[in-house]
Amino acid sequence: MSHAENPLVDDRTVTFLLDEVLDLRAHLAIPYFAAHDREGVDMLLEVVRKLARRVLYPTWKAQDERPPQFQDGRVTLHPSFRDIWPPLVDTGLLSATRPETHGGQQLPFLVHAVAAAYLGAANLNVVGLAMLTSGAAHLVEAFGDDAQRAQWMTPLYEGRWTGTMALTEEQAGSSLADVRTTARPAADGSYRLKGSKIFISGGDHDLTENVVNLALARVVAEDGTSVPGTRGLSLFIVPRRRPEGGGLVPNDVTTTQVIHKIGWRGLPSIALSFGDRDDCHGWLVGAPGRGMSQMFQMMNEARIGVGLAAVATASAAYHESVAYARSRPQGRDPSKKDGGPQIPIVEHADVRRMLLRQKAIVEGALCLSLTAARLVDRAAHHPDETVRTESQRLLDLLTPIVKTFPAERGFESVALALQIHGGYGYSSEYPVEAWLRDQKLNTIHEGTSGIQALDLLGRKVVAHGGESLTLLLREIASTVAEAQKSGVDPAICEAIGTGSQTLAATTMALGQRGLAGDVAGMLLHSSDFLDLAATVVIGWQHLAMAVAARRGPETRPELSEFYEGKRMAAQYWASHELPRVAALSALCTSAEPSYARVPDGAW
Amino acid sequence: MSHAENPLVDDRTVTFLLDEVLDLRAHLAIPYFAAHDREGVDMLLEVVRKLARRVLYPTWKAQDERPPQFQDGRVTLHPSFRDIWPPLVDTGLLSATRPETHGGQQLPFLVHAVAAAYLGAANLNVVGLAMLTSGAAHLVEAFGDDAQRAQWMTPLYEGRWTGTMALTEEQAGSSLADVRTTARPAADGSYRLKGSKIFISGGDHDLTENVVNLALARVVAEDGTSVPGTRGLSLFIVPRRRPEGGGLVPNDVTTTQVIHKIGWRGLPSIALSFGDRDDCHGWLVGAPGRGMSQMFQMMNEARIGVGLAAVATASAAYHESVAYARSRPQGRDPSKKDGGPQIPIVEHADVRRMLLRQKAIVEGALCLSLTAARLVDRAAHHPDETVRTESQRLLDLLTPIVKTFPAERGFESVALALQIHGGYGYSSEYPVEAWLRDQKLNTIHEGTSGIQALDLLGRKVVAHGGESLTLLLREIASTVAEAQKSGVDPAICEAIGTGSQTLAATTMALGQRGLAGDVAGMLLHSSDFLDLAATVVIGWQHLAMAVAARRGPETRPELSEFYEGKRMAAQYWASHELPRVAALSALCTSAEPSYARVPDGAW
Repeated sequence: MSHAENPLVDDRTVTFLLDEVLDLRAHLAIPYFAAHDREGVDMLLEVVRKLARRVLYPTWKAQDERPPQFQDGRVTLHPSFRDIWPPLVDTGLLSATRPETHGGQQLPFLVHAVAAAYLGAANLNVVGLAMLTSGAAHLVEAFGDDAQRAQWMTPLYEGRWTGTMALTEEQAGSSLADVRTTARPAADGSYRLKGSKIFISGGDHDLTENVVNLALARVVAEDGTSVPGTRGLSLFIVPRRRPEGGGLVPNDVTTTQVIHKIGWRGLPSIALSFGDRDDCHGWLVGAPGRGMSQMFQMMNEARIGVGLAAVATASAAYHESVAYARSRPQGRDPSKKDGGPQIPIVEHADVRRMLLRQKAIVEGALCLSLTAARLVDRAAHHPDETVRTESQRLLDLLTPIVKTFPAERGFESVALALQIHGGYGYSSEYPVEAWLRDQKLNTIHEGTSGIQALDLLGRKVVAHGGESLTLLLREIASTVAEAQKSGVDPAICEAIGTGSQTLAATTMALGQRGLAGDVAGMLLHSSDFLDLAATVVIGWQHLAMAVAARRGPETRPELSEFYEGKRMAAQYWASHELPRVAALSALCTSAEPSYARVPDGAW
Repeated sequence: MSHAENPLVDDRTVTFLLDEVLDLRAHLAIPYFAAHDREGVDMLLEVVRKLARRVLYPTWKAQDERPPQFQDGRVTLHPSFRDIWPPLVDTGLLSATRPETHGGQQLPFLVHAVAAAYLGAANLNVVGLAMLTSGAAHLVEAFGDDAQRAQWMTPLYEGRWTGTMALTEEQAGSSLADVRTTARPAADGSYRLKGSKIFISGGDHDLTENVVNLALARVVAEDGTSVPGTRGLSLFIVPRRRPEGGGLVPNDVTTTQVIHKIGWRGLPSIALSFGDRDDCHGWLVGAPGRGMSQMFQMMNEARIGVGLAAVATASAAYHESVAYARSRPQGRDPSKKDGGPQIPIVEHADVRRMLLRQKAIVEGALCLSLTAARLVDRAAHHPDETVRTESQRLLDLLTPIVKTFPAERGFESVALALQIHGGYGYSSEYPVEAWLRDQKLNTIHEGTSGIQALDLLGRKVVAHGGESLTLLLREIASTVAEAQKSGVDPAICEAIGTGSQTLAATTMALGQRGLAGDVAGMLLHSSDFLDLAATVVIGWQHLAMAVAARRGPETRPELSEFYEGKRMAAQYWASHELPRVAALSALCTSAEPSYARVPDGAW
């Protein structure tokens, strides 16, 4: 089993999604993307695939086995970062989606997302660093002034420096309202930061000459007062080294700890201290008190990034298990008495079950991630304002699902890939267990699954008077109608249609419960609600793929097996997952009280 | 979070199960257990708890962090094994359930299973070694002659030597019919073994002076022929060192590899080679050609052992996450606007969801494991032959569930414990991630989950003309009737009752499909069938606990919260899990064909 043979992401599926499901050609007609055409996208993806398979993937396991070192207060990455960071930066992907005026290429985020899937499947460590760097630069681009852009954004987009998101603090965790880091105004217009941050990925390393932290902190006025809660949080640029006298000098940002992570081990997670010597300079980005809302404007892309990382990891593990199942002879056909020669395990029904479950999770999640990426493009660049507004609302609604489904089900998916390997899967001589460890982070960072569930039910479905949900239901209904017309199995169409109606009715019932003042009852089953919504939404994605898979063989009869696989994945989802929707709805709407009622003494 | 505070298994729940659910006092009336009374059991369990919490648990993480070394052809365990093996042996547990005539104490396996749960939760490495040693000795006890018992069984039961089960070979995996190791008769009545084994837990170490492998091999006749398939397999004693000239001499058993496992890391998994120098002596146990059936007669206890290990691991992780959730302040009451002080996360609905799911999995699985352990006792020792026969049949039927449910759901359970810890759970500074790694082995060893599913549907439910299933349905119906009489929530009773009927109807339909010759169609959804059966069976266990929890407060009003917790776990299972049964049944009976139909080219 050579790792080099793993395709990481299936090329034909990517082409299918871009051309036959998501209509990339039509998407490229948006004026902002004028510099790009379909052939150019293929050329870019070819570069990305080679980079992923030949350069990034061969270093991933070595980075897992030899995590960053922390010595004399500084962090040293695995030396292979020096080989893979420059070619990654050279692709231009760090700023590819950004405007040409900011050094970007105005590439669709949709295409960028495909590239991220390949690269993330190859090596999450370096791709994580790249995503954080892009994200930090994008914050400065969006909310900073021209001087800040020149000073901070440009070196980040050019990969000369790297960036972080420095939100989390030990005592606050998911509850950012409790962030304590302070920022006191200084005479020169900058601020002096004091506080500590934890779990800052890429917060220290030896790869580039500077690390730029985009940090949430609380402005303290002259009289020592500050605004409590999230409304008191502002966004600051807090570099490890600050420009002074034409060079860079240390900025009183100290690495206090490197957390021993169980996965994603090549990229260090750091505890940082700001202002131990009262000399930590920070620069306010945009208006004070806007930190949370600024962060949240970037959050969609960051959460799609996590979803893509999860899809990518599950995809690599899926393909590894397919190759293993094809090449591993074991057992015989159980329907033949004493029968025949050893067969490859891919022929055993239960192995096929584990493969198709993975395939349905990976391809459903990939299609959804790319659908969301297309919405990012439409929301930002579509010439029609209505399309922009509707795309943004639909995107906002889908984001918690795009983040959570691949993370939760992708973990299950990698566990199945491990299981297919049997005892070998339990050994670190095979790569699957490392993907299992990598994957577990995705249910935690950028908002845990529980936080995403509260976001979906407590904010997103009820936003704009429920209009976002109406848009989603309209999209699903349109796909169902198209599927019926094109001859997709009526049972599949019906399963998705009914699921969609259940989603609508459940949301309505919960919204009314909330309006009646029972917020706790409304939110009691938020995770079940997310599960319900995700099951329907992924079903919708599979239905869209099934429609394209019906049409496909007309022009590409040689790919009939490929298309049959897509149809079987849709059927699998409809018959194995959609039946759970009714029970989930009952739990949500009845506010089934078991866990609410367990007395304190009974745990 | 001090590890020492983790109770590993809840004492009060154990007492509840033994006295109020499983009626240990009545069980002790079986004559074989005459030397034991209820108070003696408590004294033994007190010794076991102290050993687990004070001696075994403090060494577990250190063993995980420093796995066995392989140098100059020999394996060295973590030095702490020398501190914990002697006190573990001193408990007498290695042979406690065995007859006094063989040096045992005639302890109920039920009590032994409780002890194993505590000890396994504390340190699976050493408990795994003990279980393998007991299992090997038990094989010699059951099928060997008196001389073999004196030579091999006694030092194993006394913990002076340790034992292994040497079944698996690289090319065969789960398919034991393809085992190739050969045994040629020698002039002295012993055999000469040749071949290699893989994944032999405890197959080499420096803890005791000898390791006794109980190995499957194929007898080769003078003319070079051998019987193919499982009917050709015989059981051999193949020690690392053999008795010769009053001492022990090397027996040509070579350690060729130590597999780098991702969990259960303190106990080495070894690749062994027999007969590299044609001098590997083995002794046939019992009759030739009986190897598989002999192994399978021990299999029930080995598989209950795996189930218990899985319950134990999930239990330790559950209690760790309860303590964390109680002590970790984060966020505020979401139903209060800008409201109140930070609250411990145990008060957040979604954390409670993750805790109750764990509790329901752990306690349901523990109750089932102990129910199975009681059946082991009844099958072996009950004075009434009908009870013995029926107990054996019910046990055979339940065993694949006892093995698989705790392994599969216990993995999910530990993942939830990790999730409750947030970013800290992803760090190796906290113990949860190590339990996640330990747990993953349980779906693989002693027969993968897929193998268990085939065993349940292909053998167990159809055995004896379906009589085993009839016995199970009778037991469930009896518990449902008792629950209705004692006032358990009718909705819970109905969920279990309906689930049980669905199990019966599904089995009937699948059996008919098999009888009609469509074996592949019958077995296509064997994993879904196991899931269905396990969901009902665990529901039955929760119902039995709910019955006891209704009665409990009458005599123990001070424990009303404890009992309420048991009732809520039952309600949770009935309302969250039982609704899946109908859809699983539909998949099984319709032989839903999606994964069977995926074409080769479409993976």
